[in-house]
Amino acid sequence: MGLLLDVIEGKEVPYTPTWLMRQAGRYMPEYRAVRSQHSFLDMCYKAEVACEVTMQPIDILDVDAAILFSDILPPLIPMGLDLEYIPGTGPVINNPIRCEKDLERLNFSPDLKFFQYIQDAVSMIRGKLPKEKDLIGFAGAPFTMASYAIEGGGSKSYEHIKTLMYREPKTFHKLMQLITDVTKTYLKMQLDAGAQMVQIFDSWGGVLSREDYLKNAHPYSCEIISWLKKQASKPVIHFVKGAGSWFDAASNSEADVCGVDWTLDLDLAFKACNNSKVLQGNLDPIALFAPQEVIEQKLKLILDQAKGGKGHIFNLGHGIIPKTPVENVKFVVDKVRELSAR
Amino acid sequence: MGLLLDVIEGKEVPYTPTWLMRQAGRYMPEYRAVRSQHSFLDMCYKAEVACEVTMQPIDILDVDAAILFSDILPPLIPMGLDLEYIPGTGPVINNPIRCEKDLERLNFSPDLKFFQYIQDAVSMIRGKLPKEKDLIGFAGAPFTMASYAIEGGGSKSYEHIKTLMYREPKTFHKLMQLITDVTKTYLKMQLDAGAQMVQIFDSWGGVLSREDYLKNAHPYSCEIISWLKKQASKPVIHFVKGAGSWFDAASNSEADVCGVDWTLDLDLAFKACNNSKVLQGNLDPIALFAPQEVIEQKLKLILDQAKGGKGHIFNLGHGIIPKTPVENVKFVVDKVRELSAR
Repeated sequence: MGLLLDVIEGKEVPYTPTWLMRQAGRYMPEYRAVRSQHSFLDMCYKAEVACEVTMQPIDILDVDAAILFSDILPPLIPMGLDLEYIPGTGPVINNPIRCEKDLERLNFSPDLKFFQYIQDAVSMIRGKLPKEKDLIGFAGAPFTMASYAIEGGGSKSYEHIKTLMYREPKTFHKLMQLITDVTKTYLKMQLDAGAQMVQIFDSWGGVLSREDYLKNAHPYSCEIISWLKKQASKPVIHFVKGAGSWFDAASNSEADVCGVDWTLDLDLAFKACNNSKVLQGNLDPIALFAPQEVIEQKLKLILDQAKGGKGHIFNLGHGIIPKTPVENVKFVVDKVRELSAR
Repeated sequence: MGLLLDVIEGKEVPYTPTWLMRQAGRYMPEYRAVRSQHSFLDMCYKAEVACEVTMQPIDILDVDAAILFSDILPPLIPMGLDLEYIPGTGPVINNPIRCEKDLERLNFSPDLKFFQYIQDAVSMIRGKLPKEKDLIGFAGAPFTMASYAIEGGGSKSYEHIKTLMYREPKTFHKLMQLITDVTKTYLKMQLDAGAQMVQIFDSWGGVLSREDYLKNAHPYSCEIISWLKKQASKPVIHFVKGAGSWFDAASNSEADVCGVDWTLDLDLAFKACNNSKVLQGNLDPIALFAPQEVIEQKLKLILDQAKGGKGHIFNLGHGIIPKTPVENVKFVVDKVRELSAR
């Protein structure tokens, strides 16, 4: 049992624990060495490779928790979506869902044996990881998953998903419900295989108005969270990037922890959720490019804003980007520990 | 004198006036017809062409105000930046500023005669525009302008501007001050040539934390706004897209009107600025793809949230995108007028 669980259970901790979104990633030479040997999907599918890169930030940075190495998108594959990672472009869905007729190409009874790889990876990682380090499983939130399934990749304006949502709410709902159902099982498998908690990433929910988020995204995320809380008594972290002025709405769920990005100060976030949640965040990942004295000042501000709150897990407000200096990432992990020591 | 000025001066208006960001744009066949005859920069530089497309949404949609047709980036050219519009990619700066040495290529005493074109365009448009329609001039906010000058184009992570801001604050400041000084004159010229008001667009300020926005973006925008308010007693609209949870900070300026995007409800925005500003916004531009009954419901919500506020100018929360159905844009203009009739 690690420090994240302690914070979530309201226990005293010696310092604010840290993990970092995309802590296993291209900014690390050790990661790039493994990556050069495998395709991205193979890295997800091969338990020993996923395990190796998951362990790298534990060994190199001594972060307080490991997050399963994987990507949010592979669960779309058994649903019938043709996912491809194109170097330089990113993930592409070659058969995006744009209208009711496109639903015919979806598999509404996906073969869940597809997810054997994630169970194997989680149980191998849990076997290797020191007991005092929590293992975090994860999945994309339905809105974010659907945005890839509908847009066919990344997007600037999210015009296709919003258009479908407005014009064909039934089609949108069918896709969202399929993703929701599959995600429940996918996350439950990770918890059963030994993950201490799971995080639901809503990377793109923040492109919605409060009204549209509450109507079209939140209910599906909440359905997963509530189901998991019934099925497994393990914590759930819910992160909606860009929730900003409607964080009060986004945090209104059975999640134990809410992620916060750097555009919302932690003290305001605690206030917005009536101090009902442990909060996770919220350094701008680009602040990792700053001189260490600037980083330190930012860490002090974040730790200060978290004081008086229900509980705090230190993290970034989004994933580490490729050119980030490793020494600054290590500096953050060490400095948070030092500055927050009780 | 048009309805926008009336709202800003606190006068009774027969209905909530409307203009729409990028109301002259590619979604309109009449615009595309003109565009096919000229390069994008030529459209900005030739007063008669800029005038023609500026008038299109007045004639076709009967919006309550015209906004000068131009782009935010040409003012970077006399500063020494090599701006190019690449079809399919967007604006590119071929000699971006990434370090102190790069400042040598900037022209710190730009020839302001360069801006003759904008004076010509504004005075020609003002001559053609009916008196009851206000003409809005505009410029990019220094942070947004600098993001192009430093990133060299659009960006996902804004890593170069943030890195410069953190690592070389003096270099960052010199660039921001140059943009600030040029923008003052550029906007004053538009007001002198006959624009009734100007809008300062901070399209990318919202990628900053509250702390970074207040330190690195807001002071420069405020300097322009305060200077303009002293030099010309005409209204200033300040729009920071994504201000979200720190709209209270962004709206703390001498601006008369603050723009609000769709991720922040207008009632909360009025509250955040203590009802000290007229607000402008805030329909999601992608909602223009929705069926008209969905659009109508959204307009009702927005008009309802604006009730009790100091004043409201209807707009979108960002620019109209190319595939937007013209009939829905027209529907919005008409329906806001109908729903808000006093």
